[in-house]
Amino acid sequence: MSRTHIRERARFAPGEVILYPGVPAPGEPVYRVVSGLVRIQHVDEEGNALTLRFVRPGEYFGEEALAGLERGHFAEALTESEVEAIPADELLGDEARTLVAGLVSALAQGYERIRRLVTQRLKNRIAAALLELKDTALAQTDAEGRPVIRLTHDDLAAAVGSVRETVTKVVGELAREGYIKSGYGKITLTDLKGLEDLASRPE
Amino acid sequence: MSRTHIRERARFAPGEVILYPGVPAPGEPVYRVVSGLVRIQHVDEEGNALTLRFVRPGEYFGEEALAGLERGHFAEALTESEVEAIPADELLGDEARTLVAGLVSALAQGYERIRRLVTQRLKNRIAAALLELKDTALAQTDAEGRPVIRLTHDDLAAAVGSVRETVTKVVGELAREGYIKSGYGKITLTDLKGLEDLASRPE
Repeated sequence: MSRTHIRERARFAPGEVILYPGVPAPGEPVYRVVSGLVRIQHVDEEGNALTLRFVRPGEYFGEEALAGLERGHFAEALTESEVEAIPADELLGDEARTLVAGLVSALAQGYERIRRLVTQRLKNRIAAALLELKDTALAQTDAEGRPVIRLTHDDLAAAVGSVRETVTKVVGELAREGYIKSGYGKITLTDLKGLEDLASRPE
Repeated sequence: MSRTHIRERARFAPGEVILYPGVPAPGEPVYRVVSGLVRIQHVDEEGNALTLRFVRPGEYFGEEALAGLERGHFAEALTESEVEAIPADELLGDEARTLVAGLVSALAQGYERIRRLVTQRLKNRIAAALLELKDTALAQTDAEGRPVIRLTHDDLAAAVGSVRETVTKVVGELAREGYIKSGYGKITLTDLKGLEDLASRPE
């Protein structure tokens, strides 16, 4: 049996900030993405951005509220997104289990990210990031059925822990080698098999 | 009101493996460290180790069992450790909340680690790792009240995502600059204030 609640939902435009860094207020809810794509991002004093994770429909964010931990990051809508607020004391039974499974999965993704940062070169990390993003609301399919990801080189640099200049160089390399096609603010994945091979290589 | 259960506990010697990589069996419990220190570590085919987190008394590990996720890492006792097995279906009320808070905190630590890998140089990451370890069962206090951490350069390299040769060079540098004293298999922290300053620097 699942209880139904009328819960507060809100829509956010691309680029809109949903949560700011800071100490969660007492009773602050956690959030579930209903549609769209949310980016959890750290931004330092000089404005350098580092993406910590992408949150897709059915996944949760704002979990700091559950532990009373200071939030060190922003949550921002990357595409038009709808978000549902869930008071912590309503997290019971199946929903609590789903949240725990989501946290465990986020932790596993974080560890994968750490592993890639330590062992992989930028080119392989970019391949992995593009493959992750092709299954999100940032991606569409072109006339030939290939994934097209709307993404700037700045966004991609934040996602892989690098800077735009270097990412632009490597994106050019991947395009010349036939893995992708790079256009203004978008990247078409033309060789998925090759990208998967790159992403799984240790270096 | 808290229910009391007689739960299975086990002791592990330093270096002993508690959990191996693999798919958790159905009904596999999660684990809580009662005493000692447990290291969660990824090891690649060539034997290169990368520490993902340290688990201290009161903290949980083996959370993959809650999400049915494949475990990509080992859990290993770093010091003599006692560990309690907790069946997932006993995780209710306060204990479930403690576990969730622990997962959230592990996730925040993972993000901090990602941030340091992207922005900090090895010297600063080593300072941060030593400060983290000084509050664990690996550390004792010498006659002058300074923390002494029992740790090989291999262990330290795994903790910061580097290799032993490079770590040995930087440890020598930190010793010459008066931050630490380095002995056989142990490191004495002689300038905590200086180490904290290094650890908090962006690069």
